[in-house]
Amino acid sequence: MGGVSTADRAERVPKQDRSRATRQRLLEAAVACLAEHGWAGSTVSVVAERAGVSRGAAQHHFPTREDLFTAAVEYVAEERSVALRALFPEGAAAGDRHAVVAALVDLYTGPLFRAALHLWVAASDEDQLRGRVTELEARVGRETHRIAVDLLGADETRPGVRETVQGLLDMARGLGLANLLTDDTARRERVVQQWAGLLDEALD
Amino acid sequence: MGGVSTADRAERVPKQDRSRATRQRLLEAAVACLAEHGWAGSTVSVVAERAGVSRGAAQHHFPTREDLFTAAVEYVAEERSVALRALFPEGAAAGDRHAVVAALVDLYTGPLFRAALHLWVAASDEDQLRGRVTELEARVGRETHRIAVDLLGADETRPGVRETVQGLLDMARGLGLANLLTDDTARRERVVQQWAGLLDEALD
Repeated sequence: MGGVSTADRAERVPKQDRSRATRQRLLEAAVACLAEHGWAGSTVSVVAERAGVSRGAAQHHFPTREDLFTAAVEYVAEERSVALRALFPEGAAAGDRHAVVAALVDLYTGPLFRAALHLWVAASDEDQLRGRVTELEARVGRETHRIAVDLLGADETRPGVRETVQGLLDMARGLGLANLLTDDTARRERVVQQWAGLLDEALD
Repeated sequence: MGGVSTADRAERVPKQDRSRATRQRLLEAAVACLAEHGWAGSTVSVVAERAGVSRGAAQHHFPTREDLFTAAVEYVAEERSVALRALFPEGAAAGDRHAVVAALVDLYTGPLFRAALHLWVAASDEDQLRGRVTELEARVGRETHRIAVDLLGADETRPGVRETVQGLLDMARGLGLANLLTDDTARRERVVQQWAGLLDEALD
């Protein structure tokens, strides 16, 4: 107890804020780097430079390359989950399932999905990455499933509803893959339109 | 014309057969190599050694690395298409859509999908590969769509049917991705079961 003056405490808080801001810049730079240059081109040094942080500071926050990139994909996935829930503050949106399906599919067509895809593919070849990424994927997948169930107003106590929602998220992932090399927006919108209708019937 | 004796001709035919067999061994080795070691670990030399072919012979068949690996993915995709059609020789199988959906999904869970995924991800970072792979993906995608429509007995003149089938293939691709790091068979079978039912209602 004691020994910490008010002045000391006031000084420590901004330091923690600075540290948090540095960490956040590193995480965002790591996802952007992974999305643009793939796993082979993504090192702690490259990310530190992009974030405007010294290599030592980066290594203080993330001792290994695996730490940095798995934390980055998780951080951005959480940010996106929060943003997705904020889009539909009313919760269950059974009245506008088309908008919910479109928003869920959007999770898989941006830089986060590209980054995650690079990480998955690298993890399929590298043993030390595989366990970490498998765990991360399971956590992020569970959270995305929970959000989908809530926003679609799906009743998972009814048989088949859980698998209907899972299949929708698998479809969203496949649509993300189809968007990797070319702009697949026009086709994707038609598929989303059609399956949002089929889903509406299946969930009611 | 003349000048080509019967004996010459007889000698030439087995030579062509040998050449075709060598080419085939190279293509199969290339897909296996890509699936196991990814793009970075897949060179013409590695594949030639795996196929038991000299590097010179490999380069005679495939002048560049891009030639070899795009030809390999296309060749194996064609083999799988032929095998898929042979599974349902009666054509339209509206009576057993579950089996057709399961067989379509199987296209995306084996070594071919892993190989293609490595190629796609590499192509998203490498300009000289991107054009080739985009073209290849479009060709293979069109053929898979045609097979799906035939085997499901889907009537594409009805509005929405085309997009229903496309969404199914997107889901199959997403299921392939979900199977990359862990064995997702049990969950996948439940999703296939459920979506085959949704499809049945949508197509009839």
